[in-house]
Amino acid sequence: MEAFSDGVFAIAITLLVLDLHVPEPDTLHGQSLGAALGHQWPSYFAYLVSFLVIGIIWINHHAMCALARRVDRRTLFANLFLLLTVSVIPFPTRLLATYLTARNSDAHTAAAIYAATMVAMGIAFSLLFLAFTRDARTLNTPIPPEALRAALRRFSIGGLCYLATVGIAYLSPVAMLATHALLAVYYCFDQLAPARVTRAG
Amino acid sequence: MEAFSDGVFAIAITLLVLDLHVPEPDTLHGQSLGAALGHQWPSYFAYLVSFLVIGIIWINHHAMCALARRVDRRTLFANLFLLLTVSVIPFPTRLLATYLTARNSDAHTAAAIYAATMVAMGIAFSLLFLAFTRDARTLNTPIPPEALRAALRRFSIGGLCYLATVGIAYLSPVAMLATHALLAVYYCFDQLAPARVTRAG
Amino acid sequence: MEAFSDGVFAIAITLLVLDLHVPEPDTLHGQSLGAALGHQWPSYFAYLVSFLVIGIIWINHHAMCALARRVDRRTLFANLFLLLTVSVIPFPTRLLATYLTARNSDAHTAAAIYAATMVAMGIAFSLLFLAFTRDARTLNTPIPPEALRAALRRFSIGGLCYLATVGIAYLSPVAMLATHALLAVYYCFDQLAPARVTRAG
Amino acid sequence: MEAFSDGVFAIAITLLVLDLHVPEPDTLHGQSLGAALGHQWPSYFAYLVSFLVIGIIWINHHAMCALARRVDRRTLFANLFLLLTVSVIPFPTRLLATYLTARNSDAHTAAAIYAATMVAMGIAFSLLFLAFTRDARTLNTPIPPEALRAALRRFSIGGLCYLATVGIAYLSPVAMLATHALLAVYYCFDQLAPARVTRAG
Repeated sequence: MEAFSDGVFAIAITLLVLDLHVPEPDTLHGQSLGAALGHQWPSYFAYLVSFLVIGIIWINHHAMCALARRVDRRTLFANLFLLLTVSVIPFPTRLLATYLTARNSDAHTAAAIYAATMVAMGIAFSLLFLAFTRDARTLNTPIPPEALRAALRRFSIGGLCYLATVGIAYLSPVAMLATHALLAVYYCFDQLAPARVTRAG
Repeated sequence: MEAFSDGVFAIAITLLVLDLHVPEPDTLHGQSLGAALGHQWPSYFAYLVSFLVIGIIWINHHAMCALARRVDRRTLFANLFLLLTVSVIPFPTRLLATYLTARNSDAHTAAAIYAATMVAMGIAFSLLFLAFTRDARTLNTPIPPEALRAALRRFSIGGLCYLATVGIAYLSPVAMLATHALLAVYYCFDQLAPARVTRAG
Repeated sequence: MEAFSDGVFAIAITLLVLDLHVPEPDTLHGQSLGAALGHQWPSYFAYLVSFLVIGIIWINHHAMCALARRVDRRTLFANLFLLLTVSVIPFPTRLLATYLTARNSDAHTAAAIYAATMVAMGIAFSLLFLAFTRDARTLNTPIPPEALRAALRRFSIGGLCYLATVGIAYLSPVAMLATHALLAVYYCFDQLAPARVTRAG
Repeated sequence: MEAFSDGVFAIAITLLVLDLHVPEPDTLHGQSLGAALGHQWPSYFAYLVSFLVIGIIWINHHAMCALARRVDRRTLFANLFLLLTVSVIPFPTRLLATYLTARNSDAHTAAAIYAATMVAMGIAFSLLFLAFTRDARTLNTPIPPEALRAALRRFSIGGLCYLATVGIAYLSPVAMLATHALLAVYYCFDQLAPARVTRAG
């Protein structure tokens, strides 16, 4: 399961680059290439945040897979749902890159769709965690109930933060994207910490 | 063999996202982005069904590979034929997404091609199953003849269902796509069950 | 090395599908979708042959990797050269698909470039075989000199056939493509046979 | 970690082919296909150099991963940073292919961005090496301090060379690209040599 998942993560993260467009020479209209590229900053910003998000999900997915000794069909389907939300990320990313600086409500629409994709991804990740930990016999090392509860509390807080970014999308699409960058950095240092401590103990 | 196959499955499933198009701002003609995206619902529907189909084939392929201890050249070629039918899926998917709501027979043509691809995929999967189970010495655990017959009966029924969707394509392309979504869900809970029971017994 | 190579093979073989174009509804000009798709037969033909060629190279690459116990840097670079010729295949494939039925010398140019890519690929495969078998200590089982000579004779004949298809390209691009389909089928049943017999003996 | 990284390397190296464009028949304007393809030489040159660069990074990444027994989060993030710089390479590659022969400063801009991407990649590779070797307990075999210092000296010289190519980009974009081809060849024979000697000793 991990080889296939790693493949999907790796492809989704690499396909993002296809949406960094090279301005055609005859569309520059006297503008310098540097200036034309500079105007594309929403593309780079969206690329970076989505790269970071997929990269962090991969790292946490990897840590989660390491907990499991074997997977059942339910886990396979929870995993497939997570992969659906991950592999679709290039779509809201290019949507947001195209509309981030639009001067009307389309920017909010694009940003809300981006944020909603992340909410779906967070839900999928939580469901996969539940599927993994539902049956202690499928785990390499049992996770104590209090560590499980702590992880779920953490997921819930993360989910609420993600949900909040849907609201932020209507205030400021740029702030929404920046919040996801911060959440990714936060998740990279924190998420599976309790489970890891338990395993080391 | 499985690493290469997993790669092809992972890439085919992830390439689907390239056909979710972002409407260019200057093609909206006063329409809101939300409305423009809403008009693309055939793309999302086709994307979801194809994602589900490839995901389920992968899960069943994975289960089938787990049965085998080693593979011969015949199996490699049967596998290559399956990968051909899987890796081509993004083409009928975008064909169907483009023509699903066409008001003439082109919608039926696109839907029939989509359904025919699934028929070819079903045939390829059955051939691969036959190649895998042809020689009991290549299996981890022998599969009793009655379980094999049950699996083949099941494949035949599945194949007939797939064939029927080619007919449904001429009645209603949308119903054809919905049927494939249902068949995918059916296959995910059922297909290799007899073989699995046998192995556990 | 094999994981990376498998990845490149899997991606190259799957990227081919991106060049199967869906005719836009407003470019049909009253033609039916079926007729428009029928006119694209060079795309399907080129797709099929390139899929077959990459698939067969992968199978033979896999068989060759199974001979080796460890790889040195020279082998890694010979492998990188093979991957270069494989990963570039989508380019001559779409070149040929676009020009196969052109009524002037451009069809010959496209066909010759396709055939030349296959010549380069054949050379790269032979170099990799030499790199693999150069040092008997890197092999799982020594290959007797006569089997090695037989394999190299076989490679030479294959190389000459590939070279001949460059000439055929100037007579008939379609015949060139058909020849490559036949060569792929030939290679799939034959190429590494002597080495395999030796290992079984 | 290596499976995911191999995937990203394999996809980035294979996606490069998508930027080798096939001239549309109706854009030839009486020119032969051969001549039209010949005019695209910057695309082939940039393709080849980027292929070589990614291939060499992969080989060295592979050698580096072989040194490690286990990886911590810090290494995972250094690795993610390297993958960011690698997976973005198709963008500066097609930028350079488009502007390499532009007759104004846009060629310099494109070349400088290409060279700067390689600088970032070199920095990321050095950081990953530091993350890998920071803690001797995570290594399969300890690397003696003098070998480490030699490797870091080597990285520093390589980094300065990469930085110099940013300057060369403003003199001659073609010379910049040629320099990267030479640096790639140099790195393929040299980079991890001291560490390897140490391990063999």
